[in-house]
Amino acid sequence: MDPCWAEAAGGVTAPKGFRAAAVRCGIRQAEADDLGLLVCDTQGTAAATFTTNRVTAAPVRWSRETIAQGRVRAAVVNSGNANACTGERGWRDVAATAEAAAKALGLEPTNFLVASTGIIGHFLPIGKLLEGLPRAAEQLDASLDAGERFARAIMTTDTVVKQAALRCDVGGGTVRLGGATKGAGMIAPGMATTLTFLTTDARIERPLLLDLLRRAIDRTYNRISIDNHMSTNDTALILASGLADAPAIAADSDAASRFGAALTELCLRLAVKIVADGEGAKRLVRIDVLHAPSEAEAVTVGRAIADSPLCKCALHSGDPNWGRFISAAGYACPTMEESKAHLWIGDKLAYSAGTAADTPASELAAAMAGREVHLRLDLGLGEASATVWTCDLSKEYVEINADYHT
Amino acid sequence: MDPCWAEAAGGVTAPKGFRAAAVRCGIRQAEADDLGLLVCDTQGTAAATFTTNRVTAAPVRWSRETIAQGRVRAAVVNSGNANACTGERGWRDVAATAEAAAKALGLEPTNFLVASTGIIGHFLPIGKLLEGLPRAAEQLDASLDAGERFARAIMTTDTVVKQAALRCDVGGGTVRLGGATKGAGMIAPGMATTLTFLTTDARIERPLLLDLLRRAIDRTYNRISIDNHMSTNDTALILASGLADAPAIAADSDAASRFGAALTELCLRLAVKIVADGEGAKRLVRIDVLHAPSEAEAVTVGRAIADSPLCKCALHSGDPNWGRFISAAGYACPTMEESKAHLWIGDKLAYSAGTAADTPASELAAAMAGREVHLRLDLGLGEASATVWTCDLSKEYVEINADYHT
Repeated sequence: MDPCWAEAAGGVTAPKGFRAAAVRCGIRQAEADDLGLLVCDTQGTAAATFTTNRVTAAPVRWSRETIAQGRVRAAVVNSGNANACTGERGWRDVAATAEAAAKALGLEPTNFLVASTGIIGHFLPIGKLLEGLPRAAEQLDASLDAGERFARAIMTTDTVVKQAALRCDVGGGTVRLGGATKGAGMIAPGMATTLTFLTTDARIERPLLLDLLRRAIDRTYNRISIDNHMSTNDTALILASGLADAPAIAADSDAASRFGAALTELCLRLAVKIVADGEGAKRLVRIDVLHAPSEAEAVTVGRAIADSPLCKCALHSGDPNWGRFISAAGYACPTMEESKAHLWIGDKLAYSAGTAADTPASELAAAMAGREVHLRLDLGLGEASATVWTCDLSKEYVEINADYHT
Repeated sequence: MDPCWAEAAGGVTAPKGFRAAAVRCGIRQAEADDLGLLVCDTQGTAAATFTTNRVTAAPVRWSRETIAQGRVRAAVVNSGNANACTGERGWRDVAATAEAAAKALGLEPTNFLVASTGIIGHFLPIGKLLEGLPRAAEQLDASLDAGERFARAIMTTDTVVKQAALRCDVGGGTVRLGGATKGAGMIAPGMATTLTFLTTDARIERPLLLDLLRRAIDRTYNRISIDNHMSTNDTALILASGLADAPAIAADSDAASRFGAALTELCLRLAVKIVADGEGAKRLVRIDVLHAPSEAEAVTVGRAIADSPLCKCALHSGDPNWGRFISAAGYACPTMEESKAHLWIGDKLAYSAGTAADTPASELAAAMAGREVHLRLDLGLGEASATVWTCDLSKEYVEINADYHT
């Protein structure tokens, strides 16, 4: 079956009804934009998911409240400072940010989701941020370039801009979806992830939008891991302008299925960009776990492999040390039976029902030598499956994170 | 209260009634002994715990059977090859090992626990091992030197020999306890751990010995982590010769409490040696989690910090980036409340009830600069506590494990 979506150019400004901007305030030390603004031209609908970490950044607490009030139509984002573990002052700084943004745009503070990313435990240089906001508001623009500048302003240790857009035929018309995301470290999302800003011009009610967002995030962002350390700031927002030339999307409709599939595809593309840009990583690793007793167990096994430093080091050097993958599965899956399990590296069988397969080591090594590595573990236990994405562990990861000083 | 134990010289041959030996068979590529033999002179008692990994090495399967039969009084150990993921042939190789050892010593194969450590998925060079066994049997010796040679023969990526011994006054007499252990990578024990050989000359029945072993392992080996990857070969064995000049140790007695305390202390000393020798590590890190809702949750929080690559990189560089420690606690403890939590690095308060404490960063950095680092996290939630031990993550860890080729 052909997919109901097709690739489009740009990111958050690809759908109709969105303007974006980015400016440099000096919050990050780098000579780069560090404040982004994203605004929907209409009072459409919005949905968001957030980190499940109990240590929650002030902007996440603010945004949980405003999203619940149902009037979010814009986002302010800074990089360079997470505004986490900052107590009362952190909260006051978020409120001041939303108030200044509202004033600059003629909106209310409750129209804003606020997001921050960067170092934990330092107060925001709020003066710099408030100075930059009116400048950002003046630059708001609906061009694809403006969307890309927004995506660039939310980067921290990222080495590439991460955005994507799709067109989706929902029957009776076409809608667009766009997105920007960031992240290269502290990536092990749970319920939400990293910072992700999604836009669409579909007309769609809030409950359905939230339901489809949660499903999409659960199968994409929640299945990537760089270092198994869940952030305090993870936020995924979707804004819908309703300006597409297409009928409204109703719950339980064919259009909802199509829109959901496109949204999942968009999230997958963005999430995979994060893993591919993992701090210090040189390989993108796809782990398919097949014939598991349940989807949850398939995810658990995939993540055990994805999160093991030993597996990640083997993936780094391209060494087909499959014993590490199999032993990780063995501690993650309490019902695993060696006699039923098979592991392929690329299309080469490495492990078969309890022992090494007779594939020559040189062929296995060749299957691990590329920029992308594909592991396929068949547990032979049930009918469920899941795919998890990760990257390798390198000396550069240690360097980046040992040198990222307070 | 004074402890009931005192340090003694040596390792597995410190208690009365044990002989040990080690020889080089060529199983490891290094120019080092790779086959160890440990024998109790009497048919005393024995207890063991093993890995909970579902992918279980052939020697673990063998040893589970022989320990259940109740006649184990000796151990054969090789380093350089784990004999894991080796199917039927792996089992035949273990049986052949036990048979050859039995023949060389005039014992039965069921008197032997067999343990292996090294690469997964390769068949044992069984000819080399069988050739070495009679040589090892001839060299068996009760000296402390022989115990140390045994401890040296079980090393793989270890850089130091790991052994310890204690004297324990059990009331009415003194018993000795000794032990040897190995491990520097693939360390995240669950229920048992790594390879650990413990000896004692106490007279003690099997059920009590097993109970005290499990308690000791649970509070020591099961609370260390180097890389959160549970091995397929973890084995902890204790052999009791009954030759001490002391009364038998009865269940629920004061002597059992004292013996248990000494056994726990011995296991702690050995387990900490493993973490201190973690692959590529330069710091030993003790994490005390205080006032947790339950001991299990205290362990979970401690391990989240111990296993986070971001925390480990901060520990490596000696950077007091406490946001990483607090955010790890936040995803590990579902009832954490920032306003109740405090974190000390050494004796310096780093985080207090939701925000940075006002300790100067230079003082926090000084508290992280040494060979040993002490983190103390008070959750302020309940009455339980636990201590977890870990090490830092270095470029050398990546180097060691990327270069450890199949």
